Amino acid sequence: MLAEFDLIRRYFMSPQEAQATDGVALGCGDDATLLVPQAGQQLAVSVDTSVVDVHFPHDAPAYAIGHRALAVALSDLAAMGAKSRWCLMAITLDQRAFKDDTAAEQWLADYASGFHTLCQQHATTLAGGDVTSGALSISVTVMGEVPTGTAITRSGAQVGDVVAVTGALGGGAGGLALWQQGERDLKHPLLQRYLLPQPRLKAGIALRGLATAAMDISDGLLADLAHLREASQVGVALQPDSLPLAEGLAEVLGSEAALTAALSGGDDYELLVTLPPSKVAQAQMQLAELGLSLSIIGRCTEALGVTGVSVEGATGWQHFRGGAQ
Amino acid sequence: MLAEFDLIRRYFMSPQEAQATDGVALGCGDDATLLVPQAGQQLAVSVDTSVVDVHFPHDAPAYAIGHRALAVALSDLAAMGAKSRWCLMAITLDQRAFKDDTAAEQWLADYASGFHTLCQQHATTLAGGDVTSGALSISVTVMGEVPTGTAITRSGAQVGDVVAVTGALGGGAGGLALWQQGERDLKHPLLQRYLLPQPRLKAGIALRGLATAAMDISDGLLADLAHLREASQVGVALQPDSLPLAEGLAEVLGSEAALTAALSGGDDYELLVTLPPSKVAQAQMQLAELGLSLSIIGRCTEALGVTGVSVEGATGWQHFRGGAQ
Repeated sequence: MLAEFDLIRRYFMSPQEAQATDGVALGCGDDATLLVPQAGQQLAVSVDTSVVDVHFPHDAPAYAIGHRALAVALSDLAAMGAKSRWCLMAITLDQRAFKDDTAAEQWLADYASGFHTLCQQHATTLAGGDVTSGALSISVTVMGEVPTGTAITRSGAQVGDVVAVTGALGGGAGGLALWQQGERDLKHPLLQRYLLPQPRLKAGIALRGLATAAMDISDGLLADLAHLREASQVGVALQPDSLPLAEGLAEVLGSEAALTAALSGGDDYELLVTLPPSKVAQAQMQLAELGLSLSIIGRCTEALGVTGVSVEGATGWQHFRGGAQ
Repeated sequence: MLAEFDLIRRYFMSPQEAQATDGVALGCGDDATLLVPQAGQQLAVSVDTSVVDVHFPHDAPAYAIGHRALAVALSDLAAMGAKSRWCLMAITLDQRAFKDDTAAEQWLADYASGFHTLCQQHATTLAGGDVTSGALSISVTVMGEVPTGTAITRSGAQVGDVVAVTGALGGGAGGLALWQQGERDLKHPLLQRYLLPQPRLKAGIALRGLATAAMDISDGLLADLAHLREASQVGVALQPDSLPLAEGLAEVLGSEAALTAALSGGDDYELLVTLPPSKVAQAQMQLAELGLSLSIIGRCTEALGVTGVSVEGATGWQHFRGGAQ
């Protein structure tokens, strides 16, 4: 088996990363990386861990595992309206999971490809990492910048604001269901949604100055909406008929389960936002330029709580409850 | 079992962390934390993962596991001469490892206490985290600041420089050996060295402008020295008789194994530095004020490689080789 330094060098310290560009004064290979934050910006930071057979299936394609581990972390920066700048990637690998060195190297090359491709798409520089031995698990720390005072938090929603979501919902849960049924064609739009979620970074930036509050939908709409409601101290009247369902979802799950997936399935990584009615048209226009829809799904109310849906049994996913995802 | 949000709130979002102090514009509880880097400073970042039964024994005290997971990460900032500012902590917990909820809560309280106490000692604010379910593993991302141009890298050693180490060596390996022999008295100095290593942050800052190169000793002196030699393109003539052995090490291991532990045992988390002979006295004086010794153990040479010791079988620890530590 390869030594950890060889692994890191071969797959995660390509010449591009080692160069002192993109705000990196000293790249990988020393005790710490030296970054150069820009004046007038706040640093948005977040960490997300993806564990095998909790957050992704052990037999998921390595490319998707690399993409997804970074995507779920970047999604948190998107929800703040931050521009992604840097990331750190700590991977724990189970060498016994590979039948030989060749299989391990192929897996790592595919994993690195998924990770790096998404880095490049969002101008994010891998600024450090760690490789350890154990059950497969990936912790990604993301760092982004946002001009001071422009970050979109969860706590700014006002009574009367519109509640809206980017893109479509339920695709994460639908894709997982398909995967569990044995579907392996990665071109299937629901598998794409589940395995290769697209962090909405450009949308988050476009919504600066328009959205009063934002968060990403990772645990399911209702569960995440509860956090936003609590932080903003508002209620929400939902219009479930307005929920944008992921393409093909109703066909795969049936219409009732499709609605449940959109309300309570996790792993969608769309943005949940609130904004004044007067800003909706502008926000929709700006997101349309990014090829992304912004669907109104409800309104903020003074009465706390949620109306419009039965929340019975629809409390969303919490990883530590130990359910099988 | 508690839900992840409850866990995070109860043990890792004390009121102190939630306040917007210490360069934190927006604390835990949103999608990302907003930090305020200082002008004129570079940001030093690093991530370290600690895996149960790879980096620490599963039956180590929870307090020590929390302390140690942070300490090994902070040690990387120390090696750069950076001042620690913030950290993020991603923990994966195996709920089946606890006999009941009470045991889990006690473990978490002790773990948090070890983590927070070290945070406080080094003015480091916990700025975010993640809790997931799986085999126990902790990834800590540390962020520090260093005035632009003053960071100490691995690549600045010059031929003729003195090679020196802070504190004493071999304590990590000696403490592990003691633990494996059943010693459980945490007051034993070697167990302290292994389970509660002290990151040399103040020493790193004191060595700015004096040391030409620095790194921390985590994989063993010879293995880490090899990285420094390669980065600086120098050789080193070691004086093994000058190695400062940890207190009690020779008594526990015997003198030959004690020397091997100092050369090749991991987990010491002392600083390995090079500095011009003319700066040694000043560096020793400044470290003495911190209660820390700085021992000269060799000199940088033009001929690459290491002389003075047999390096046979003494290549240091690499976690991914899968050895049992």
